[in-house]
Amino acid sequence: MALREPRLRAPASGPLAEVLTKDRHERITHALGKAYRDVVRGFRGEFDNPPDLVALPAAAADVEAVLAWCEEEEAAVVPYGGGTSVVGGVEPRLGDRPSVSLDLRGLDRILEVDQTSMAARIQAGATGPALEEGLREHGLTLRHFPQSFEFSTLGGWVATRAGGHFATLETHIDDLVESVRAVTPRGVWESRRLPGSGAGPSPDRLLLGSEGILGVITDAWVRVRPRPRQKVSCGVEFDGFLPGAAAVRALSQSGLHPANCRLLDALEAATTGAGDGESDLLVLGFESADHPVDALMDTALEIARDHGGRPGAVRGAAPGAGNRRPAADDSVSSWRSAFLAAPYLRDTFVACGVLSDTFETAITWDRFESFHAAAMEAVREKVAEVCGVAPNGPGSPRVTCRFTHVYPDGPAPYFTVLAPARRGGEVEQWDEIKAAASEAVIDGGGTITHHHAVGRDHRPWYDRQRPGPFAAALRSAKADLDPGAILNPGVLIDP
Amino acid sequence: MALREPRLRAPASGPLAEVLTKDRHERITHALGKAYRDVVRGFRGEFDNPPDLVALPAAAADVEAVLAWCEEEEAAVVPYGGGTSVVGGVEPRLGDRPSVSLDLRGLDRILEVDQTSMAARIQAGATGPALEEGLREHGLTLRHFPQSFEFSTLGGWVATRAGGHFATLETHIDDLVESVRAVTPRGVWESRRLPGSGAGPSPDRLLLGSEGILGVITDAWVRVRPRPRQKVSCGVEFDGFLPGAAAVRALSQSGLHPANCRLLDALEAATTGAGDGESDLLVLGFESADHPVDALMDTALEIARDHGGRPGAVRGAAPGAGNRRPAADDSVSSWRSAFLAAPYLRDTFVACGVLSDTFETAITWDRFESFHAAAMEAVREKVAEVCGVAPNGPGSPRVTCRFTHVYPDGPAPYFTVLAPARRGGEVEQWDEIKAAASEAVIDGGGTITHHHAVGRDHRPWYDRQRPGPFAAALRSAKADLDPGAILNPGVLIDP
Repeated sequence: MALREPRLRAPASGPLAEVLTKDRHERITHALGKAYRDVVRGFRGEFDNPPDLVALPAAAADVEAVLAWCEEEEAAVVPYGGGTSVVGGVEPRLGDRPSVSLDLRGLDRILEVDQTSMAARIQAGATGPALEEGLREHGLTLRHFPQSFEFSTLGGWVATRAGGHFATLETHIDDLVESVRAVTPRGVWESRRLPGSGAGPSPDRLLLGSEGILGVITDAWVRVRPRPRQKVSCGVEFDGFLPGAAAVRALSQSGLHPANCRLLDALEAATTGAGDGESDLLVLGFESADHPVDALMDTALEIARDHGGRPGAVRGAAPGAGNRRPAADDSVSSWRSAFLAAPYLRDTFVACGVLSDTFETAITWDRFESFHAAAMEAVREKVAEVCGVAPNGPGSPRVTCRFTHVYPDGPAPYFTVLAPARRGGEVEQWDEIKAAASEAVIDGGGTITHHHAVGRDHRPWYDRQRPGPFAAALRSAKADLDPGAILNPGVLIDP
Repeated sequence: MALREPRLRAPASGPLAEVLTKDRHERITHALGKAYRDVVRGFRGEFDNPPDLVALPAAAADVEAVLAWCEEEEAAVVPYGGGTSVVGGVEPRLGDRPSVSLDLRGLDRILEVDQTSMAARIQAGATGPALEEGLREHGLTLRHFPQSFEFSTLGGWVATRAGGHFATLETHIDDLVESVRAVTPRGVWESRRLPGSGAGPSPDRLLLGSEGILGVITDAWVRVRPRPRQKVSCGVEFDGFLPGAAAVRALSQSGLHPANCRLLDALEAATTGAGDGESDLLVLGFESADHPVDALMDTALEIARDHGGRPGAVRGAAPGAGNRRPAADDSVSSWRSAFLAAPYLRDTFVACGVLSDTFETAITWDRFESFHAAAMEAVREKVAEVCGVAPNGPGSPRVTCRFTHVYPDGPAPYFTVLAPARRGGEVEQWDEIKAAASEAVIDGGGTITHHHAVGRDHRPWYDRQRPGPFAAALRSAKADLDPGAILNPGVLIDP
C-alpha cells in the first residue's frame, strides 16, 4: 500500500521521542474516520491524507509538549479519540500542511470517583466500555451510549457534543458534564466543578462542540448515577409515521421524560427486524435506580393509545415483580440489537456494493411534517438519480426515518439511506446524496447536525446555519488561543 | 437633588431624537440597580453615576441606531431591562466615560406563539407579568419566576442567566431558551429555532450570561408549557440543616425532579414565618399539566422520612380529588408570601437601619458540609466585626441559609444576612461583609454566583473563578464584535 512519506521528523531524543511515531500502521489507522466515504476509501486502500506522525501521549503534560512542538514546526494537530467521526473530523485533509494525529488513548483512566456528588473525573481517552467497567466497580454508570460507544471516547464525546442513550432530558454529553480540562496553546483551560452556575457565559459550553479547534480535552468531571434497577420497555405500533409523531409530541410535552422514546418508520422498523413493514413502531422505555416506573409507563401508554397507538406487552419490571417478563425476543430488543450491529453491518454493505449512510437533524414540531416530507422526497429523488433506480416502487432506494431524541419543542429525526452503489463511484455518489440531504435540512430550518458534529464534511451548511457574529466571535477566540492555527484546521472555522 | 449635567447631547432631529432622552427622572431611575448598596444610596439621594442619556427604543432597528450613534460618540451603552440587578450590572460606574442606559421597555410584545412546539417569540423588554399575561390568553406559561419577576424582563433573564421557579431540571432561563436574537455593533446575531443541536459550540450559550457585553438582546424564542393543573406541595421538618441536606441530596439524585425542593434552615424558616425556629423546613412541590403527581409526592416523602423528615399535610391536588385541601395558611404558603414580599421589605429594613442583603452560590455535595460551615462562620465573624455585635448569642447577626435550586451533584445555597447597620456607613459595611462572603465562596470552591450574575460587583472573584484561556477567548470575541468597547464596559471583562 502506497503511503506518503512523513513530512515531519519526530525528535530522536527528549520526552517527545517516546510520544511521536511515524509507524505505518498508526498513520494508516489515523488517516480516516468512520463515515461511509471513509469505509469505502479504506476498502480501496486510499489513504490520501495520512497524518505525518501520530502522537501517543501518556499524560496531559505530553499533550502540552506536542502542542508546543507542533507550533514550532507549524504542523497541524488533529485530536483523535476513538476515530469514529462520520463527518471528516479526524481526517487530516490539509493539503501541503504537515499534521500530527494526537491520539488520547493513553489517557484512559478514571482519576477520581465522588460517590457523594455522583460524579467522576475521567480522562479523555477512556472508551465507553472502559469507563463503564471502571464505574461499575463503584455501582455507578454514565449511561452515555452513542452508537459508537464501543470505540469512541469521553474526550471525543465532549468535543463533538455526542448524543447518547437518553431520548429526553440528558440527550447530549453536554448535560452530563460538570467541568472540563483542556490544554490550549495558551495554557490549561480548566473549569470549576459546579453543579450549576450563572457566572458569565458557561466556559464548558464553549468547549463542548469545539471539535478540537480551541484545545485538546484531557479530562472531564461527569455526572454519573447508580445503575438502574427498575426498567420497563414497550413497543407501540402506529398506522403511519405522522400519527406516531403526534403521539411522541404529546409524550415529549407530558413531563414524563421517558428514557427511551424512539419512533421508527415502518420501513426502518422492518429493516431492523423490529417490525413487519406495515406498522410504524415507537420504542418506549422508563428506568430508575430509585423507584418503580411502571406507573409512568402506564401513563405514557395511555397517551400513546389516545393517539392511535397499539401497545405490545410491557417488558421488564421491578426486581421481585413477578407479573411481567424480562426483555426477550420482542420488537424492542430486535431494534436494540440491530442498532448496535449497524456500524459493523456497514462494512458488509460496502463489500456487497450497498450504499449505506445516514444523516440527522432536529426541527421544531410545527415544521416537522413538511420538513420530513421535503427531506424524504429530496433524498429519494437524488438517490434515484445518482444510483439509476426508480424513485418509487420495487427496487427503489430505501430512505427511512426514526427519532433518536425528542424535546418538548421538537424531534431529532435520523435518516438512513440504503441504495445500490456503483463500484468505484461510491464516494462521489454519497457526496452528491449527502449534499442534497444537507440542502434539504438547512433550507427546511433544521440543524446540520443534532449529534454527529460538523467536522469538515458539514462545513458549507454549518456556515449557513450559525449566526454571523457568532462565527466572528469563535474565529477571534480561536485566533487568540491558537495563534499558530495548529488545532484541527478546517474544522468549524477558517482562520 | 444634585445630578451631573449630561455629557452627551442627543441629536435634535432624525430618528434618534425620539429615542434618546436627557430627562432627569429617567436618568435618576437608570442610575442604580436594586442591591442593598443601591437602595441605601437611593435613599441618600446619591446618584453619582447617572447615565448621560437614556435610550428608549421602540423597535430593534432603534437599538441598532443607538449602538451606531454611541460608537461614533465613544459613549458606553448599558443595556437595561427591569433594572433589578443586584450586582452593579446596570450602574454606569464608568468614570469620565459618558454613557447611555439602553432601556428595552418599549420592546415588550409577544411576537409569535407556536402552540404546536410550545414555544413563543417574545421581545426582550417584556416583564414577567406582561409576558405571563400574554401567554395566559393561549393557555400557556413560561413559569420562570425569579424573585425579581414583577419588574425584570426576558432580555435581562437571558443576559444574566436568571434562576427561576423550578428547583430541578429547568433551573435557569438557559434551559427554556430555544433561540436568541441580539444586536451587536457587527450586525445581528440570530440563532435558528432548534429543539436541540450539536453543530459546534452553542451560539445561544455564549449570549446567555453575556450581561450585555457582546450584544443587546432584542427577542428570544422560549419554551413555554400548558398551565399546570395538578399541583401538590408539602412542608417537611428536619432536626438540623445537614439532615435536611442529606434528604435533599437523595431527592435530587432520585430522578423524581420535584418542581419545588427548597430547604430552609431553622432561622430562615422562622424569619419568613414558615417555621418555629426549632426545625429546618423543606418545601417540596410537584406539578404537571398532564398527569396526577400525588404518587411522585408520596415517593419523595418516603425518601424524606428515610432521612428523618417529618412531613406535614400534603396540600393541593388534582381537580376533583376531594381528599386533599387546597394550599392555605400553611408553612409552604407562608414561605411563598415572604419570598415575594422580601424585596419590598428591604426598603423598610433600610429605613429602619437594618443591614440586609444576600449572597448565593452552588457547590458539589461532597464539599457542601465544610463549605457551609466555613461560609457561615466567615460571614458571622465579619458581620460581628463590622457591625460591632457579638458573633453568637442574643443580638448576634442573623445569617441564614436556604437551597434555591438543587442538582444531582450539588445544591445552590442562598445566604441571607440581617444585622444592625451603622447610619451613613451601610454601603461600606455591606461591601466588607460581601467581600468576606465572596472570599469564602471562592476559596471553598463555589461559584461566585448561581443566578445573580457577575456585573461589576463580583468581578474580582469571577476573575479568579473562570479559566484563564476562557477569559482570553471572551476578551477576543468581544473585541471583534464590539471594537469600540461600547457595550457595558467593566462587566465580565476588561478590554
